[in-house]
Amino acid sequence: MPDPTPLSLLTDFGLDDPYVGMMKAAILLRTSNVNLIDITHSSPPQDIVRAAILLFDSYRYFPTGTVHLIVVDPGVGSNRHILAAECEGYRFVAPDNGLIDPILRCSSASAVYYVQPEKIGIDAYTATFHGRDIMAPVAAELAKGKMLSQVGIKTHEWVKLDLPFAKEVNGEILGSILYADHFGNLITNIRPFDLEHGDIRLHEVEIEVAGTILKGIWHTYTDVQPGELCAVINSCNRLEIACRQSSALAHLNVEEHDPVIVRRRSDT
Amino acid sequence: MPDPTPLSLLTDFGLDDPYVGMMKAAILLRTSNVNLIDITHSSPPQDIVRAAILLFDSYRYFPTGTVHLIVVDPGVGSNRHILAAECEGYRFVAPDNGLIDPILRCSSASAVYYVQPEKIGIDAYTATFHGRDIMAPVAAELAKGKMLSQVGIKTHEWVKLDLPFAKEVNGEILGSILYADHFGNLITNIRPFDLEHGDIRLHEVEIEVAGTILKGIWHTYTDVQPGELCAVINSCNRLEIACRQSSALAHLNVEEHDPVIVRRRSDT
Amino acid sequence: MPDPTPLSLLTDFGLDDPYVGMMKAAILLRTSNVNLIDITHSSPPQDIVRAAILLFDSYRYFPTGTVHLIVVDPGVGSNRHILAAECEGYRFVAPDNGLIDPILRCSSASAVYYVQPEKIGIDAYTATFHGRDIMAPVAAELAKGKMLSQVGIKTHEWVKLDLPFAKEVNGEILGSILYADHFGNLITNIRPFDLEHGDIRLHEVEIEVAGTILKGIWHTYTDVQPGELCAVINSCNRLEIACRQSSALAHLNVEEHDPVIVRRRSDT
Repeated sequence: MPDPTPLSLLTDFGLDDPYVGMMKAAILLRTSNVNLIDITHSSPPQDIVRAAILLFDSYRYFPTGTVHLIVVDPGVGSNRHILAAECEGYRFVAPDNGLIDPILRCSSASAVYYVQPEKIGIDAYTATFHGRDIMAPVAAELAKGKMLSQVGIKTHEWVKLDLPFAKEVNGEILGSILYADHFGNLITNIRPFDLEHGDIRLHEVEIEVAGTILKGIWHTYTDVQPGELCAVINSCNRLEIACRQSSALAHLNVEEHDPVIVRRRSDT
Repeated sequence: MPDPTPLSLLTDFGLDDPYVGMMKAAILLRTSNVNLIDITHSSPPQDIVRAAILLFDSYRYFPTGTVHLIVVDPGVGSNRHILAAECEGYRFVAPDNGLIDPILRCSSASAVYYVQPEKIGIDAYTATFHGRDIMAPVAAELAKGKMLSQVGIKTHEWVKLDLPFAKEVNGEILGSILYADHFGNLITNIRPFDLEHGDIRLHEVEIEVAGTILKGIWHTYTDVQPGELCAVINSCNRLEIACRQSSALAHLNVEEHDPVIVRRRSDT
Repeated sequence: MPDPTPLSLLTDFGLDDPYVGMMKAAILLRTSNVNLIDITHSSPPQDIVRAAILLFDSYRYFPTGTVHLIVVDPGVGSNRHILAAECEGYRFVAPDNGLIDPILRCSSASAVYYVQPEKIGIDAYTATFHGRDIMAPVAAELAKGKMLSQVGIKTHEWVKLDLPFAKEVNGEILGSILYADHFGNLITNIRPFDLEHGDIRLHEVEIEVAGTILKGIWHTYTDVQPGELCAVINSCNRLEIACRQSSALAHLNVEEHDPVIVRRRSDT
């Protein structure tokens, strides 16, 4: 038997209901030779942008060959398509609602297919749970080695997603808070690339967030004192506002989408 | 080595404590050739009815041969029995408190055994965690291929469970809300079978819940407008009250056990 | 292929973010022949004592040979070491902040190494996520069969942890509440060993907690009436205050660290 194929799952199902287990059961019905890895099932209900960001920040840490199954599907049962795609050596199965658009956009060599359930022997399915009834089986077939062409028909169209990118205005980088993580770290949409673009060096900047000014971008949390706020470039290559041994979310009066501004320090 | 056996877990342990991990460790002590799949560990503490419903709605999506291990066990350490059972090609291990009764009842060809721990070499166990010390090892032995007769003694007795079934009264179907899922969808105990029994067609009915009347049963959520309430037959074959792109729970002032009534539309 | 190696994970990452999934992905990059088992990811953020207790209470239920990967790492990016250790047939990978000290202390035959990432080909890593970038790869290499000496350099130093042990004062055992579990059971730091030491028999004691006196230590929850408080020796060999079919936490006005006193019953 060949090595098991990694198959990741990212949904908005939560863990209280049996939905994730049912989806994994549907995978096991077609193959037992998979390593099922949960990215998260706590993406906010029906929030396509958040799930797209979580996927974008995670997918490349998996071995190439991994099948990523992403189900945030407010349009289930409508005439929206289901996508099976290949990009950078990874396979993706997701509803066609923008979830995997940020990844497809970054690559010139992606292949995108509309899933045709009948190609893998699916004649009947419920109207409200295509994750279990269509997408999990498709992911399982890809994990078993089926080609994209064996699960669907090629397309060059897919739903695009407007992600909230940071932008440069008058030499300042205008970004925003995407979300707060479990530690209360504030994850932003500002990336090292944005900063270089603005020709700003990390120690020469100040960051404005919620009326507070933070001086410089540090290497790691322990560069500041316990309880002190700091900005770092985090492990997903994003500007992050943290508070050493505490929660930045608890220290700052902020919400998702609130602005974060990076500019040259006024005191240098 | 043969294909790994699927082994599902459904408990009320939550995920904050190490109890689920310990139970899986106890399985791995006896076999590594299993695919462990969590159905959920968030069944409400010591709520046998809820766990029985979650299991009933989930078990058949797994491959036949799956061992289902269900531990909601308020009677642990008392003289209650532990069951090992086979039904419809599935195996079940659970305390004898009604958890698997709804499944056993639906089948004429089930085999039910009282577990005898000494049969699989268990001489000592704690008084408060039979899930880890007895049931997980039994499930592991069944996954390895042991027969029910090798882990216990045959019985025809087991604890019955009073599930809240819907009933027909004067041509109306009287049901109730079982629980709200992660999306705020209200899961009821009314099934298509109940409706046919009442000789009602789906588009000709109205549903009364929390003082609100919903017209018709729809195919899927996207058949109504965003923010609008709708009734559908869900992916587990239950009548469900949903709210498109929102939460029906947040829109209706309802609780578990509240009545749901289906009747012929007054306007047709 | 040999049997898959059990590899447990215990972190304070929570399950809402993709961090746990990324760490598992990093393991799969080096080996697919592992059984990944979550102990918990809900250890309170940056609380080393709690994680050390959860690990101490869990690790021995796993098969020997298991690699335990523990990441609660407030000092990430600083000059703190990372440990790889072997003890009682188990392997451990964790930051050197006391997490595995209670286990190492209990054994005379442990081997402890400072991890040297370059030994397993890691030249670059982020400053804020050594769990993914260093510790997960080290754990994977140990699971594949590498020796400790192949991932680091031997040491006899490691950070010690002050655990809140119970003590005997004037024939009374003075302990405290470590935490409340998912069921509202109050887990204490008092162990049967402490009681024997004080020459007290289980049915002859009374337990004082939050101004309430409980008579005797019972065998199991069902020895008392539903809704009644009781003390038991739990499945992890700790004195536990429980409430049958309910939550002791909800019945007593207590917090973590509150005192629990065991003494000879005044009425015998």
